[in-house]
Amino acid sequence: MSLTLEEIAQKVDGKLEGDGSATVKDVAEIQNAEEGEISFLENPKYAKYVETTNAEAIFVKKDFEGDYKNLIRVENPELAFSKVLEYFRPSPPIPEPGISESASIADSAILGVDIYIGPNVVIQDEAVIENKAIIKANSFVGRGSRVGAESFINSNVSVYNDCKLSENVTIHSGTVIGSDGYGYSRTAEGIEKIPQRGGVIVERDVEIGANCTIDRGTIGDTVIGHGSKLDNLIQVGHNVKIGSYCFIVSQTGISGSTSVGDGVTIAGQVGVAGHIDIGDGAQIAAKSGVTKDVEPGTTVFWYPAREQKKARRDIVNIRRISQLKDKVKELEQKIKEMKG
Amino acid sequence: MSLTLEEIAQKVDGKLEGDGSATVKDVAEIQNAEEGEISFLENPKYAKYVETTNAEAIFVKKDFEGDYKNLIRVENPELAFSKVLEYFRPSPPIPEPGISESASIADSAILGVDIYIGPNVVIQDEAVIENKAIIKANSFVGRGSRVGAESFINSNVSVYNDCKLSENVTIHSGTVIGSDGYGYSRTAEGIEKIPQRGGVIVERDVEIGANCTIDRGTIGDTVIGHGSKLDNLIQVGHNVKIGSYCFIVSQTGISGSTSVGDGVTIAGQVGVAGHIDIGDGAQIAAKSGVTKDVEPGTTVFWYPAREQKKARRDIVNIRRISQLKDKVKELEQKIKEMKG
Amino acid sequence: MSLTLEEIAQKVDGKLEGDGSATVKDVAEIQNAEEGEISFLENPKYAKYVETTNAEAIFVKKDFEGDYKNLIRVENPELAFSKVLEYFRPSPPIPEPGISESASIADSAILGVDIYIGPNVVIQDEAVIENKAIIKANSFVGRGSRVGAESFINSNVSVYNDCKLSENVTIHSGTVIGSDGYGYSRTAEGIEKIPQRGGVIVERDVEIGANCTIDRGTIGDTVIGHGSKLDNLIQVGHNVKIGSYCFIVSQTGISGSTSVGDGVTIAGQVGVAGHIDIGDGAQIAAKSGVTKDVEPGTTVFWYPAREQKKARRDIVNIRRISQLKDKVKELEQKIKEMKG
Repeated sequence: MSLTLEEIAQKVDGKLEGDGSATVKDVAEIQNAEEGEISFLENPKYAKYVETTNAEAIFVKKDFEGDYKNLIRVENPELAFSKVLEYFRPSPPIPEPGISESASIADSAILGVDIYIGPNVVIQDEAVIENKAIIKANSFVGRGSRVGAESFINSNVSVYNDCKLSENVTIHSGTVIGSDGYGYSRTAEGIEKIPQRGGVIVERDVEIGANCTIDRGTIGDTVIGHGSKLDNLIQVGHNVKIGSYCFIVSQTGISGSTSVGDGVTIAGQVGVAGHIDIGDGAQIAAKSGVTKDVEPGTTVFWYPAREQKKARRDIVNIRRISQLKDKVKELEQKIKEMKG
Repeated sequence: MSLTLEEIAQKVDGKLEGDGSATVKDVAEIQNAEEGEISFLENPKYAKYVETTNAEAIFVKKDFEGDYKNLIRVENPELAFSKVLEYFRPSPPIPEPGISESASIADSAILGVDIYIGPNVVIQDEAVIENKAIIKANSFVGRGSRVGAESFINSNVSVYNDCKLSENVTIHSGTVIGSDGYGYSRTAEGIEKIPQRGGVIVERDVEIGANCTIDRGTIGDTVIGHGSKLDNLIQVGHNVKIGSYCFIVSQTGISGSTSVGDGVTIAGQVGVAGHIDIGDGAQIAAKSGVTKDVEPGTTVFWYPAREQKKARRDIVNIRRISQLKDKVKELEQKIKEMKG
Repeated sequence: MSLTLEEIAQKVDGKLEGDGSATVKDVAEIQNAEEGEISFLENPKYAKYVETTNAEAIFVKKDFEGDYKNLIRVENPELAFSKVLEYFRPSPPIPEPGISESASIADSAILGVDIYIGPNVVIQDEAVIENKAIIKANSFVGRGSRVGAESFINSNVSVYNDCKLSENVTIHSGTVIGSDGYGYSRTAEGIEKIPQRGGVIVERDVEIGANCTIDRGTIGDTVIGHGSKLDNLIQVGHNVKIGSYCFIVSQTGISGSTSVGDGVTIAGQVGVAGHIDIGDGAQIAAKSGVTKDVEPGTTVFWYPAREQKKARRDIVNIRRISQLKDKVKELEQKIKEMKG
């Protein structure tokens, strides 16, 4: 299984500079690539490796200014790389359709065709597993929940009752969908629980990483909009609405009833307060704490988060307080002298 | 299943202003409520919806000053709402008592009456499952551990050996109780593990969210006090003692041997250092990092956390450093001129 | 089962001061210790308990200056304590070798001798379980993965396909090894997933806490170096390389392609950016956000993290801005007066 550079360039709609007959048998990271391997350059931090790599060829951006024996210029080098990666290292085989003997499936559950249900999977009353869905070992689908067509639920996932996963949804291991929202009221006698009776809707083409927790709504649903991609260990509170095509990176938490627009990027370890709005296309830098609405298209940073430029200036300013103190001391001295 | 406003007012011990014969069939959030639905107003951010909602009636605080066709004044609108929510949307049926054939239960385990043990649940030697306890699919209860009466363990929970869960404890999916505390000692040869031989005690009426980790003590126990409520993805280190009726919000971590008093509120993504004391009734604002003792009844904020008012002033001050620099430059200029 | 202080002193290679014939039957924390129990003093915060404890004896550092009826001076009091803890409270029995009837083991899996495979464990095609490995209930080992000799996998763990766990590796419950790295590319049409085809290598003597997520590499592997110890709820991104004998504390996240040297300590709730290098022996204080390379042997703190001394000075400076403002106001007043 090998391809010539000419074939690869065609495959990714790229412009080859170099030897079109050279053959490639595998992909590799630029810092480790050897002859016969193709790599890519996207992050400028790795540009230095162009000089030392032994890669057969490198995917680069159209305006790349460096030099290498074989280059393929493309719009998006990472995406081009991704395509040949898919070619040289095809996806591990997905399970053959079939239902494990050790699965526990309620009589009233509705099962589509060509589904895979792994060992010890538990599917409760009136749950619906649509065509070609895959549910791997030791996962749980509660009463009345739905797993959409061609969805892929990895091992040890828990989906509580009355949650709706749409088509082509991927859920990684250990994730919990539909646990109770955090709703309590302090009373004179102690703490009273607010019933959590809404559900969770995960729209099509969503991917949710490992060990996330997506709480059900109090009334109404928690919603993850279509095409959004969540990393690992993320908390989504009750009645949160996340728009479509959002990136939400690891260990971020979004508090109850907050609304996140479309195309939003939230980096890792961010905290978002409850009952606020994050506008379409907004970006939230890593580890920020967002305490109020974020305007569409803006980038916010730090804690409490504010417009990124201002936050960066604040940080620079902090690091110069000592200098400022010295200056003030100097002025004080001068004034003393003038008075004296 | 419908109620008149008069019946509802009576149910929640409220004062009705409006048409007592109007009927309500369901609950809804104020921004979406339609005729025949009742809503509530607690968070002032939602007061604007009083003008646009179609709710049949709204629960409001006793001193609410706005106007609406049907109001029910109560001490705690959220709690009143919670009561009618419970009425209109009753809890999903809890599993009928019974023990799944696919459960693995050690001969020496002691089982109470009217318990539910779901598919693939594993209960090891000498564990005790008390009356009316519910343990859902694929959960694990280790040797010598106890699940108290009327407790509810959701799917895919792991309880290690020698942990004691008291009455009416709820544990959500994916949570791990009793994993080893993080205790090691660096030596000349590498790293030596400190054995973790204590246990975990979860007192009555505690609720622990999804994918939390509650470590066992080194010697002595880690304790979660009665009535405390933990959200999701929370880390509780070895030998931590949490008092009663605490709120601990998502993604918070409490380091080993720290003591948290009664009635404490710890907001989301807070980190608390080890070996410190958080006094009764203290409040820790979201994303704070607490590095030293917190006095009872005080509120702390930011990182490193300090008394909230001071932290807020610090943040305001940071945002005005540029201004201060300008002022200093101006004075410098003036001095130059005076000298010149 | 009791020991004289003389026997204990010998066991831990310590210098006894006091009554060598006194007997000890158990261990206890210094603040709770009673007669017949031995304790230790390492953290100076606990020195005050030397006056109030009833411990039979205390392990102290060689240069301890206080006074107590029976002291055993040692290099490392915690480690000495750990040894007698192991003696008085031996490890709970590990499971007898055997394979549960309810385990699902692929025909092509390769099983060593003296292994324990608990109930409902699923082991897929071509996985290798080496001698004396223990895999507890409801865990999953994917196709082609390896669990090394004498490794201990707790309940409800998920190991995806093609991950290699070396000898004597411990994985706590709920942890996920080998889920997809977070790799996507925004395109005009939405979001394209970058295939994640690398693996995870966990070297010998590694311990990973509960509910962690260790992502597989895109190409190439994510590596946890030998002897490193991870706490709970930790995220390790794709292609991260962690060196040997590192401490990584709870709720920390390390972004993709970052390299962590040997002997590094990363405290709790730290975030580390992607594509950076943390040098050997570096220390990262709790809750820090590391955005750029960290030099070997240095300690960094705060967010954005910088050299600890500088960060601490920054924090002190912030808390004195009000004072500085007052001073500037005073100078302004003086200048006014001088001009006037």
